[in-house]
Amino acid sequence: MTNDLEGTGEALADSLAAIREREPLVQQLTNEVTKNDLANVTLSWGALPVMADAPGEASEMAELAGAVLLNTGRMTDSNIEALHAAGRAANDLGVPVVLDPVGAGTTPTRDEVHTSLLEDVEFAAIKGNYGEITHLAGKTAEVKGVESVGEYEEITESAQALAETTGAAVVASGAEDIVAGSDRIYRLRTGDEMLSTVVGTGCMLGATLAVFTGSLEEDVTAALHGTLAYGLAGERATDLEYNGPASYRINLIDSIAGLTPEVAAELETENQIVRVR
Amino acid sequence: MTNDLEGTGEALADSLAAIREREPLVQQLTNEVTKNDLANVTLSWGALPVMADAPGEASEMAELAGAVLLNTGRMTDSNIEALHAAGRAANDLGVPVVLDPVGAGTTPTRDEVHTSLLEDVEFAAIKGNYGEITHLAGKTAEVKGVESVGEYEEITESAQALAETTGAAVVASGAEDIVAGSDRIYRLRTGDEMLSTVVGTGCMLGATLAVFTGSLEEDVTAALHGTLAYGLAGERATDLEYNGPASYRINLIDSIAGLTPEVAAELETENQIVRVR
Amino acid sequence: MTNDLEGTGEALADSLAAIREREPLVQQLTNEVTKNDLANVTLSWGALPVMADAPGEASEMAELAGAVLLNTGRMTDSNIEALHAAGRAANDLGVPVVLDPVGAGTTPTRDEVHTSLLEDVEFAAIKGNYGEITHLAGKTAEVKGVESVGEYEEITESAQALAETTGAAVVASGAEDIVAGSDRIYRLRTGDEMLSTVVGTGCMLGATLAVFTGSLEEDVTAALHGTLAYGLAGERATDLEYNGPASYRINLIDSIAGLTPEVAAELETENQIVRVR
Repeated sequence: MTNDLEGTGEALADSLAAIREREPLVQQLTNEVTKNDLANVTLSWGALPVMADAPGEASEMAELAGAVLLNTGRMTDSNIEALHAAGRAANDLGVPVVLDPVGAGTTPTRDEVHTSLLEDVEFAAIKGNYGEITHLAGKTAEVKGVESVGEYEEITESAQALAETTGAAVVASGAEDIVAGSDRIYRLRTGDEMLSTVVGTGCMLGATLAVFTGSLEEDVTAALHGTLAYGLAGERATDLEYNGPASYRINLIDSIAGLTPEVAAELETENQIVRVR
Repeated sequence: MTNDLEGTGEALADSLAAIREREPLVQQLTNEVTKNDLANVTLSWGALPVMADAPGEASEMAELAGAVLLNTGRMTDSNIEALHAAGRAANDLGVPVVLDPVGAGTTPTRDEVHTSLLEDVEFAAIKGNYGEITHLAGKTAEVKGVESVGEYEEITESAQALAETTGAAVVASGAEDIVAGSDRIYRLRTGDEMLSTVVGTGCMLGATLAVFTGSLEEDVTAALHGTLAYGLAGERATDLEYNGPASYRINLIDSIAGLTPEVAAELETENQIVRVR
Repeated sequence: MTNDLEGTGEALADSLAAIREREPLVQQLTNEVTKNDLANVTLSWGALPVMADAPGEASEMAELAGAVLLNTGRMTDSNIEALHAAGRAANDLGVPVVLDPVGAGTTPTRDEVHTSLLEDVEFAAIKGNYGEITHLAGKTAEVKGVESVGEYEEITESAQALAETTGAAVVASGAEDIVAGSDRIYRLRTGDEMLSTVVGTGCMLGATLAVFTGSLEEDVTAALHGTLAYGLAGERATDLEYNGPASYRINLIDSIAGLTPEVAAELETENQIVRVR
């Protein structure tokens, strides 16, 4: 199949401009490893991060938010309670909610939390690595820590199946990223292998999707443009000098801030996206 | 009005030397987004950070500290309990306490916690952005997340009013910073707009004020010199090469470490501070 | 005394290759200040970090891990419960456990937790600064925050005493690092004074020891090579350009990733290690 207009630099530029125009408050419930990164990524896209995750306050803050990210990296009782409270409050008000099911398939505790969240909360987008998405779709995946191994074809099927059962736009990230809605599927060749040398780059994509979902009307477009923009920033980060993963990470966030609507409009992105269905 | 001697590079150099001489242990109860930054900022000024914030241990550690920072960014029951315990223990021993009322005015939970802390603990210094200080002073502020909008004149009045009712030195940070004691008010033009592109730069100023308050006798001087030194470091960070917010953040902490008494003594700071009352 | 073969670059290269071969999942229960750093250090050595520290999940994850790090930097009830649960689960399965007793000797709460952990859990390795190791060995140490002062000879004795009573390999880090087993003691001259200007570099050594302990059969060798490799990375970080502690920290993690088996095999390390017993 061929690309459609969604994959052009001009379309991406419009989405990046919408973030700066709306400047949404993006509430993020996330693990402690990546809190700082996610907040800085959010600010660098032009949105306003707020990381309020106390159970008593999570729903209050969700009412003020333009989007809510539920990253399940930390499994304390307090966090689990807050994930549900913020998700439900956002659903009640029509605020879009993004799920990042960290480590799905590794421990019984995680399985229970993810099953429960999928029953309790309606998601605008769900993002995971190949193993996490395959696991959530009910298939067996080989999972080691938060990394995973899987076959590409299976993953596309899993992503679409999960999109159909949940109604969410689904992003499966890996060597190539898959973006699946119930009506269309894209495959993206953006990104750089350096992304896998830095902790939390998957979580940063989750924050990116929350920013785009909070700024655009259509969830699959938001998921596609968020994944595209993040992958382009990951590529452009290698244009700046670096000596390893830590300096690459600095470049990544600088590149996110540098991917302005003006810059994006000039980029040729057509060869990097294939609409596969 | 004119400057007084407090605003000179030589006076600042003396304060920076006092930190290195006393090397105070600065206990910091803060949010998880900025814990690492605040610890590194503290160490880079020449003080010793300790981030002990468990409710059971917070008061034990406060007894060993030269200053205590209460940053209210995280609203879990555990954190709230620890904020009170550490604040009271420090008050009992005459250890100065600095308040950073993150997000004051955003949620009912935050309002309750800030009101309660102001009743329970005596502060040497209070630092917030324009909206937070205006809100604590009992005025209405337009607040969006942790950012805020306000009129400059109102803010000066609010800062002084808060200084008078609490007895604390009050710092309202923004495009220009205001430092208010009950007897005098300063306006600082230091800083750089890049500071607003990095998450937690307000929190880092809070840690800076705790370091200075724990090293100097007089709280308004500590607040003035802490705010001045931090703003100068923020300016000098642009002298080093950077490509965006993440590399600027690296420069900021390097510049803090590089602002030695010797360097400060040579700086011309007179035009950057105005005593307005 | 003279060096033995353990201290050569070739021996270190073999150990670094073993990490990449085994790619162990290293579970880390640690403080919130250094979580991100420890995860990135672990990934940069070629192992897989997982930071699951909820009490209910800690033992489930320990069952999947190749090594477990217990860093006691945070003294909340939840963390203390998780430290015990993960340690015991790892012991039951023969998974090696590393202890980093942060701030041992500072507060009564910390003393109680460390005593209790040493009774409850068997450790493959224990790492602390001079004061922490001296304190755990039952001697009096002058401790200020997480820094400490002590005499070198005492520390060697304390490290060996602790190794004998616990059966663990003991690393006392400072200007020179001491690595003690019950049968042999080494003194290492690697490292750089810049390490003391960055928060959490001691914690990063703890994560490094967990990586090596999870990849090698013999605990004293793992402790020696982990300490050696980390010190070498700390030295080599100064070969890259830096302007202060923050840019040095970036270099440190880049240097860890850059210390491949091939690079290590070429290094002359003999003059940097002395076997003292």
